[in-house]
Amino acid sequence: MSILKNINKVFDHRVRLGIMSVLMTNDSLDFITLKKLLDITDGNLASHIKALEKENYIKIRKSFIGRKPNTQYSSTHLGTLEFKKHLTALEHLINIKI
Amino acid sequence: MSILKNINKVFDHRVRLGIMSVLMTNDSLDFITLKKLLDITDGNLASHIKALEKENYIKIRKSFIGRKPNTQYSSTHLGTLEFKKHLTALEHLINIKI
Repeated sequence: MSILKNINKVFDHRVRLGIMSVLMTNDSLDFITLKKLLDITDGNLASHIKALEKENYIKIRKSFIGRKPNTQYSSTHLGTLEFKKHLTALEHLINIKI
Repeated sequence: MSILKNINKVFDHRVRLGIMSVLMTNDSLDFITLKKLLDITDGNLASHIKALEKENYIKIRKSFIGRKPNTQYSSTHLGTLEFKKHLTALEHLINIKI
């Protein structure tokens, strides 16, 4: 049995770790805020958001603030559950004694 | 300043996290042991070892056990230093409050 067994490949990238980490302590965040926090390009952020959304780990809510479209991202129940499992597996791996 | 600022891209993959984690608590390990622990292919392990060696994060010692060649891998002083910085950055990211 691999010591990597519970590491979730979908979260195995620093940008995705960053997105999920800030969504654990914030109900939702918009694209601009995520982009500023992570300091990455629009395209880079969009591709990681798409991958997380595809797994149903994050959900997207589109609305208007005044006349301006606003897109909010938040973690789904599944996303929160799976991310916490991933963090536990990371912690186990980092502290592994063989 | 990005919340990802101290995350080390070289360690940003579960296999490399696994290699460095087990080398933190073992002076050295050989290829077969690493391969069994991580449950990955020879090629996959070799490519990640090469990337870590290129950054001088791991060192390789070749010797003979009887007539059989034996290759041992261990973390360098730099590797240990940088990996611990990476783990601190990961911990900071995972617990981030914005």
